[in-house]
Amino acid sequence: MNKITINTSKVEEAIDITYKVQEIVRDSGVRSGFCIVFTLHTTCGLTITENADPDVKRDLLLGLGKISPDRTEYRHFEGNSPAHIKSSLLGVSLLVLIEDNRLVLGRWQGIYFVEFDGPRAGREVVVKVVAT
Amino acid sequence: MNKITINTSKVEEAIDITYKVQEIVRDSGVRSGFCIVFTLHTTCGLTITENADPDVKRDLLLGLGKISPDRTEYRHFEGNSPAHIKSSLLGVSLLVLIEDNRLVLGRWQGIYFVEFDGPRAGREVVVKVVAT
Amino acid sequence: MNKITINTSKVEEAIDITYKVQEIVRDSGVRSGFCIVFTLHTTCGLTITENADPDVKRDLLLGLGKISPDRTEYRHFEGNSPAHIKSSLLGVSLLVLIEDNRLVLGRWQGIYFVEFDGPRAGREVVVKVVAT
Repeated sequence: MNKITINTSKVEEAIDITYKVQEIVRDSGVRSGFCIVFTLHTTCGLTITENADPDVKRDLLLGLGKISPDRTEYRHFEGNSPAHIKSSLLGVSLLVLIEDNRLVLGRWQGIYFVEFDGPRAGREVVVKVVAT
Repeated sequence: MNKITINTSKVEEAIDITYKVQEIVRDSGVRSGFCIVFTLHTTCGLTITENADPDVKRDLLLGLGKISPDRTEYRHFEGNSPAHIKSSLLGVSLLVLIEDNRLVLGRWQGIYFVEFDGPRAGREVVVKVVAT
Repeated sequence: MNKITINTSKVEEAIDITYKVQEIVRDSGVRSGFCIVFTLHTTCGLTITENADPDVKRDLLLGLGKISPDRTEYRHFEGNSPAHIKSSLLGVSLLVLIEDNRLVLGRWQGIYFVEFDGPRAGREVVVKVVAT
């Protein structure tokens, strides 16, 4: 089990971690299998989305902010219920296949860690590579 | 493959099943691997969210109700399209890593079964533990 | 690793691919395990939802359209940010258990490929069957 540590610098941001996951896959030497990517927190998430135009991740954060805005009815004392809900909407784990020691991703797909309640130091993402 | 059976008592509720999944992992004797958690229905879901303040799950249900409200345009004869959509938004499966015969979860993370169309008797969650 | 190729004919549609995945599982000969289903694009998704009343998938598309509508604030030059966001909400992968060489699905569950930015030729879904 490998760990990626991320320090976020904004309230919300989507950070491309594809190359870090690919590095772990490469170092594992696994030719064929899959990898599990999992983040250990409840106010961030993981998603696979377009890696080309940076406006896609900007629009994703903007859109999720409209989908899960702050609401006066929320009671959670930390005031970050919108972030918890966004985390549940994206999910905290991803599964990516491996062939020829490389992640099987479409041409435009990147793996993103998405912060919804930053900035935070020491966000952790664990990665397990499984050979099949 | 193990099964957890859940009887829900409200229209909507989020039920912590972490200890039940951990029990299955413990009984499996698997030291290192992962487990797959999957629910066999289309109007409930599974999510990992905060296990400390109970207001987090209350706010989650409230927020999802705003995100996927009932709409006059819906045609599904059972009238529970908002529940089907919430199920698709959360998803019906989870993946959690195992190390030292324990679920690898962050300090605040719990595994929740989320009912969107209850109360129902006999909701089923299957759990498979895989050694690696 | 097997591939399902899908040609979509509408801007948005949900296509049942359960029998195609089941066919791959059958041909694999795997009695017990799980399969990973993954789509290689960023404006479509995968979900498990009701396979009986076709109005459920109609309502799903309608509901997601309300949840992630087009917004004047979006900047992505292709104009399909709502589709990217829907893709992130559903996710691009699924995990289904296998027992007795069959997918472990509830009575009403089907596996759906969901197009959000069609029509498109050659949408790809990769399927990996893993024995345990």
